[in-house]
Amino acid sequence: MSRKRLQRSKKKLGQAPGSIIYTGERTKDKLNIEAFDFTQENYSEKELQHITDCFEYKFSNTVTWINLNGLNHVKDIEALGNHYELHPLVLEDIVNIAQRPKVDDHESYLFIVLKMLYYDDRQNLTSEQVSLVLGNNYVISFQESEGDVFEPIRDRIRHAKGRIRTMSSDYLLYTLIDAIVDHYFSVIEILGDKIEDLENQVFSASTQQDLSIKIQDLKREVLRVRRAVFPLREVINRIEKNETSLIKNKTLTYFKDISDHLTQVADNIEISREIIGGLMGMYLTNISNKMNEVMKVLTIMASIFIPLTFIAGIYGMNFNYIPELQFKYGYFGVWGVMILIFLGLVYYFRKKKWL
Amino acid sequence: MSRKRLQRSKKKLGQAPGSIIYTGERTKDKLNIEAFDFTQENYSEKELQHITDCFEYKFSNTVTWINLNGLNHVKDIEALGNHYELHPLVLEDIVNIAQRPKVDDHESYLFIVLKMLYYDDRQNLTSEQVSLVLGNNYVISFQESEGDVFEPIRDRIRHAKGRIRTMSSDYLLYTLIDAIVDHYFSVIEILGDKIEDLENQVFSASTQQDLSIKIQDLKREVLRVRRAVFPLREVINRIEKNETSLIKNKTLTYFKDISDHLTQVADNIEISREIIGGLMGMYLTNISNKMNEVMKVLTIMASIFIPLTFIAGIYGMNFNYIPELQFKYGYFGVWGVMILIFLGLVYYFRKKKWL
Amino acid sequence: MSRKRLQRSKKKLGQAPGSIIYTGERTKDKLNIEAFDFTQENYSEKELQHITDCFEYKFSNTVTWINLNGLNHVKDIEALGNHYELHPLVLEDIVNIAQRPKVDDHESYLFIVLKMLYYDDRQNLTSEQVSLVLGNNYVISFQESEGDVFEPIRDRIRHAKGRIRTMSSDYLLYTLIDAIVDHYFSVIEILGDKIEDLENQVFSASTQQDLSIKIQDLKREVLRVRRAVFPLREVINRIEKNETSLIKNKTLTYFKDISDHLTQVADNIEISREIIGGLMGMYLTNISNKMNEVMKVLTIMASIFIPLTFIAGIYGMNFNYIPELQFKYGYFGVWGVMILIFLGLVYYFRKKKWL
Amino acid sequence: MSRKRLQRSKKKLGQAPGSIIYTGERTKDKLNIEAFDFTQENYSEKELQHITDCFEYKFSNTVTWINLNGLNHVKDIEALGNHYELHPLVLEDIVNIAQRPKVDDHESYLFIVLKMLYYDDRQNLTSEQVSLVLGNNYVISFQESEGDVFEPIRDRIRHAKGRIRTMSSDYLLYTLIDAIVDHYFSVIEILGDKIEDLENQVFSASTQQDLSIKIQDLKREVLRVRRAVFPLREVINRIEKNETSLIKNKTLTYFKDISDHLTQVADNIEISREIIGGLMGMYLTNISNKMNEVMKVLTIMASIFIPLTFIAGIYGMNFNYIPELQFKYGYFGVWGVMILIFLGLVYYFRKKKWL
Amino acid sequence: MSRKRLQRSKKKLGQAPGSIIYTGERTKDKLNIEAFDFTQENYSEKELQHITDCFEYKFSNTVTWINLNGLNHVKDIEALGNHYELHPLVLEDIVNIAQRPKVDDHESYLFIVLKMLYYDDRQNLTSEQVSLVLGNNYVISFQESEGDVFEPIRDRIRHAKGRIRTMSSDYLLYTLIDAIVDHYFSVIEILGDKIEDLENQVFSASTQQDLSIKIQDLKREVLRVRRAVFPLREVINRIEKNETSLIKNKTLTYFKDISDHLTQVADNIEISREIIGGLMGMYLTNISNKMNEVMKVLTIMASIFIPLTFIAGIYGMNFNYIPELQFKYGYFGVWGVMILIFLGLVYYFRKKKWL
Repeated sequence: MSRKRLQRSKKKLGQAPGSIIYTGERTKDKLNIEAFDFTQENYSEKELQHITDCFEYKFSNTVTWINLNGLNHVKDIEALGNHYELHPLVLEDIVNIAQRPKVDDHESYLFIVLKMLYYDDRQNLTSEQVSLVLGNNYVISFQESEGDVFEPIRDRIRHAKGRIRTMSSDYLLYTLIDAIVDHYFSVIEILGDKIEDLENQVFSASTQQDLSIKIQDLKREVLRVRRAVFPLREVINRIEKNETSLIKNKTLTYFKDISDHLTQVADNIEISREIIGGLMGMYLTNISNKMNEVMKVLTIMASIFIPLTFIAGIYGMNFNYIPELQFKYGYFGVWGVMILIFLGLVYYFRKKKWL
Repeated sequence: MSRKRLQRSKKKLGQAPGSIIYTGERTKDKLNIEAFDFTQENYSEKELQHITDCFEYKFSNTVTWINLNGLNHVKDIEALGNHYELHPLVLEDIVNIAQRPKVDDHESYLFIVLKMLYYDDRQNLTSEQVSLVLGNNYVISFQESEGDVFEPIRDRIRHAKGRIRTMSSDYLLYTLIDAIVDHYFSVIEILGDKIEDLENQVFSASTQQDLSIKIQDLKREVLRVRRAVFPLREVINRIEKNETSLIKNKTLTYFKDISDHLTQVADNIEISREIIGGLMGMYLTNISNKMNEVMKVLTIMASIFIPLTFIAGIYGMNFNYIPELQFKYGYFGVWGVMILIFLGLVYYFRKKKWL
Repeated sequence: MSRKRLQRSKKKLGQAPGSIIYTGERTKDKLNIEAFDFTQENYSEKELQHITDCFEYKFSNTVTWINLNGLNHVKDIEALGNHYELHPLVLEDIVNIAQRPKVDDHESYLFIVLKMLYYDDRQNLTSEQVSLVLGNNYVISFQESEGDVFEPIRDRIRHAKGRIRTMSSDYLLYTLIDAIVDHYFSVIEILGDKIEDLENQVFSASTQQDLSIKIQDLKREVLRVRRAVFPLREVINRIEKNETSLIKNKTLTYFKDISDHLTQVADNIEISREIIGGLMGMYLTNISNKMNEVMKVLTIMASIFIPLTFIAGIYGMNFNYIPELQFKYGYFGVWGVMILIFLGLVYYFRKKKWL
Repeated sequence: MSRKRLQRSKKKLGQAPGSIIYTGERTKDKLNIEAFDFTQENYSEKELQHITDCFEYKFSNTVTWINLNGLNHVKDIEALGNHYELHPLVLEDIVNIAQRPKVDDHESYLFIVLKMLYYDDRQNLTSEQVSLVLGNNYVISFQESEGDVFEPIRDRIRHAKGRIRTMSSDYLLYTLIDAIVDHYFSVIEILGDKIEDLENQVFSASTQQDLSIKIQDLKREVLRVRRAVFPLREVINRIEKNETSLIKNKTLTYFKDISDHLTQVADNIEISREIIGGLMGMYLTNISNKMNEVMKVLTIMASIFIPLTFIAGIYGMNFNYIPELQFKYGYFGVWGVMILIFLGLVYYFRKKKWL
Repeated sequence: MSRKRLQRSKKKLGQAPGSIIYTGERTKDKLNIEAFDFTQENYSEKELQHITDCFEYKFSNTVTWINLNGLNHVKDIEALGNHYELHPLVLEDIVNIAQRPKVDDHESYLFIVLKMLYYDDRQNLTSEQVSLVLGNNYVISFQESEGDVFEPIRDRIRHAKGRIRTMSSDYLLYTLIDAIVDHYFSVIEILGDKIEDLENQVFSASTQQDLSIKIQDLKREVLRVRRAVFPLREVINRIEKNETSLIKNKTLTYFKDISDHLTQVADNIEISREIIGGLMGMYLTNISNKMNEVMKVLTIMASIFIPLTFIAGIYGMNFNYIPELQFKYGYFGVWGVMILIFLGLVYYFRKKKWL
């Protein structure tokens, strides 16, 4: 994980600031460009072939959503950036997938970076960077590869469900962020299940297997989710507070709603952290309990049979004169003594609750 | 627990914002509507049959408390919301029981979400969402199912006990919140008893049973209470500070009192957390102490009888010529030596305080 | 402890706000009323028989200190409260001994709640609630039962020692708080001794006795002291900052002095917490060290005698043909071999520093 | 480490403030002075022989970067400082390599201290102090010894790559800091690898070797990186906020970019700390697991053979009358009993999952 | 330690505020009074015999430094205080050595309390209270007993080294504080060495000796240093920020320098705390590792010899008919079997890496 996250440093070290270099691993053969253009009455949905096809929307009266997939096509992204007058550092941040969630207010547009989180097929936590540019009448979204998180939004635009067609670009921005944040809940949910699973494993742990590395891994996972969620909360709070003409008062209520959701997610993460924090201790007590059990078996077996063996040893000695050996029922007498000792020790261990 | 808390995500994922969907599990066949309408002199108490029956109170001169039970009746709640001009996101929050305690100031009304906490019959901590809407002359309260936490308040209205009949709707709001917060004290009390119980169990722990999962569960319980209390304290503080014409200066003193109570509860929770935080360590030392005891028994038994058995073994050898075997009192001499060794070892272990 | 602290909830649940109910356990047959009335030149000291006897001081020109003992006499306290125009919530707080230290500014008077701490005869930490009302020319103090913490102040009034007779009621308030805070130092001191004692016990711990519960109890004690001291510091800071005409600038320097003392006490508490926090770990290492010692004795005894017993066993076998048995000095040869093995193992354990 | 860091105290104790004394260990025979002087059109690059050679740049119209290597040449640095009118305390700080990253605004110039971090050939974390002075048209940088961190910047100046030649001295300052901060990423990366390595070692730990000191050392390393990064973040934040005419608005965006990078680094450090924090616990559970395994082997061996040996001992006794000894197949019968006991115990241990 | 720190409470309990009582243990027969009086051109250095001898400096034009040693001479200090018009609470604080570092601005003078820290001959951390009063043209310093921390300053005054003779009394104050703070570095250094020593001891710990108390003691030592340093940093920050005419702008730069130094010291303390925090865990893993080693020796010895002894026991039985006993080479055959078992077990333990 840590290696992937930091690859940029290797590729970029020594580059001039504003150099636009893709730092991710997922590449696509072709840049996917999707454009939704709508007013309250109409909407059009197009798969664009060339980056220049989306230049026309800059000054249209309609609300436009341009969605790009495939950050490895840096040339096209640079062309788009130049046309829409985005700052070089913004373009650098879009293709550098190691960004921390943040918002930059560039007066004529708002630039937001956030992380889409999901569990892939093999239950690995995957984090994908999504950049959003909010202009007066458009939103441009940049994704590493296709995710279908936005599918319900496309549907709502197509069928004019909810308010989306009646509102302006800032509401569109809100729905995109909301879709991503809603997915955090399912991530948190899976995480919660994983923690409960691990807790049960730890509790019933047969000592065959070392669970400490699993605990440590889960801790790491929670920290990664935390890293996506907490800065985003700051981002949304800044959007709520900072006055920018790009986001209308009417829409602010909706951003407050996202903020509430993020606080809920954040609460869950903090609780998860506390629970995981206690897991290692729980594991340790569990191992110690198991050891206690092992020790008890040993102690009971040894404590009972060592004295008995000693007695047998006594009468195995070859002294010329050992009076007991001559007794007729000496052998049975010894058995009697041994059984008494045996019962005494069993009683003693019972009283100590070891048996 | 975590599953219940997060169910909303499954049901709601991909829904347009403002969709009013009940996310709880408790359903009622019929929506209970209860209306208290009072002035200093008179009061009426009605069980309403239909949601439209409570529309009339919107512009009355009296103070009205409408209490609704059964959040699964979303249609009715929507109808009420439309009549009382509540924002769609407010209605969404009312029926989405995964809310964090919060207050939203919508100018013409104040919207408050909080959590009612109690231990059910099987001593499980139960959390129920209560939403409160404070209008100029009314308070509407929304509950998942009937709780009798508000019974004393009904009594006070009926018999004009205390100030309640002489004050306006903001004081009514205060009494409702106060009733819920007062219940936190009994939750905290039970929690304190549970911690003490567990502490005693841990202290006297026979190693038969693993208590670490109980410690972890109790920790979770405290975290859940914390999650209800701490945000509510922020809510009350915001009510105290933010100036809203809906809450009169005279009533603010009472909200300050709630704030004091919540701080007391919060103090108790933090102390509980610290105590629980020490429990796992206490448990570990206890297990280790037990193991020490087991080890000592083993060590004493083995250390005493192994050397003695060795001596018996010596004289069990079949060498042709072992002079001691011929001694008349050889056997008794060996016994003497053994008893000396035995006493020596007992003395040694006594000195070490192992016996 | 937790039970006592929370009793109020049981008695009060469902009561209207402002209900004046004593929640403590200590009751007195008779309400003690003590009145000191003084100017720079004169002073009078009276034991009042009836609550109405202290009504006259409300508008006198002299400085008056009325000290009440016995919070179970709620009727009298209510009568006093009505005469001195105290808010019902203030009266409720006075007799509800579960208050957190706080200050309320009611314009015509200042209401302060704080905790008197001391160790009783059996070295149990005892916390007693003291409420103070500062009026223009009087201070009224409410105590659960007689404590002699204020005795030195009575002396100073009687003999006009220090500045007390030359200053107004705010300075009197200061001296009362100062007397209570000064007592915190002796509590902290005893606590420090207790921690050192426990540390020594843990260090030299014979494993007979489980100290973890003592550590946990001491932790609880520190948390209780903390709970009295930290909010009081906030209280004093608020008095220092908030401008109230009741406390003169000249007296503020003295409150700053209390604040300094409380910071010292708070520092000590935090250090105590850190030290106690380390105690459980120290105890665990100590137990583990002890176990190591036990294990070593076992290992040394077993490792030395088990091989020797094996050799004895060899020559105890009854094979027809065992050549060594025929050797003249076979027996002594075996002894030689055994002694060599014994010395070898002793040397080995010496080298490992186990002996 | 700690010794190196604090050497200054020994050398400097008792010196008058403003005494310019080099506290580092790395010395150079000759002070390296390198001067880059450029405008958008031209640039010159010189290796200066004498400190006075760089006096001329003070009032030139071009942008100048003077880079000095070898802080042990305090006389030269003092001469330079006097010419460029630097405060004596600034000069003291330049040669005292124990500084914490900081920025001082001296109106006519800005003084910044920061730490260059890298891993040397033997993978030891090395920290080198770099001081930067930003004047109106120049930047002077002071290094302990040559580091080639700035090489890419020299290249950019030479070949007019990026914006560097078109901007003023504040942008030059930015590129220098940016180059250092970029290197933090590779430090963080190596640190991440080290942590993963150690985690794997801990996980698979053979008990031959004590890893706790390695964990402690790694912790120390993270704390050292933290100490370089966190104060620098404050420094950059202060530059962003504080208005100084030396840094133009246009350049502030770039400083914001550094701030973002530092926050990323800081996030990584905090995650590293949490992971390392869990390592000791993980190690302890691992050791305990290993001990459990050892104990099980002992317990199984002892529990099986001790009872069997006891039986053998019984029939090794020399009583005159032991009936079983006379049985024809007594010997085989005993073997049968022993095998049954053996199988019973194996079954028991299998059921307990110890085998 | 805790006892010394809190002695004041015993002596002072019940005293009127402003009572001037020395609470320290170090007493001097005679109060040492030393006066340095200087201008840029001249200086005089006198050992004063009587406290009244230093009254004359109050209104002189020169800068005067009066240094007093021996806080037990409270009468003299009171006389001095009255002459220089110091507040009674200030005098109380000077002789009460349990003060926390603080600054009080009394308009006509500034009162500063701080702690001088050093390790005495037996390497015990010693803390001595130093009080400083800054007047318009004088500084009065109060020490418990002579420390030679100020010797370099005396030298600088005598030989007019540095700026000291050219500056006013605020600069003198700065040099005194600076001298004390500089000593913190050597305390930190020794502390660092102690931690490293202990770390090495813990790492190589033979289990003979319990190091947990040493860890706890070192923790306490760090906490004591922290207690001296952190409040002093606040003090210096307040001096920097609060505008007082007693400290000139020109001197503020120097106080900022002290602040930087204190932040460095504080950083070191925090790192020390983290390192010590890890020590107990490190110690525990170390003990557990040692125990593992002990257990392995036991397990190997027992596992090898117990089965062999069992075999020897078998052929020690006295059954009439044991066929193997008759075999000619039965004895050697048994030896062969035993050696095979021995080798098998050795191989097994080798494979497990226990040997």
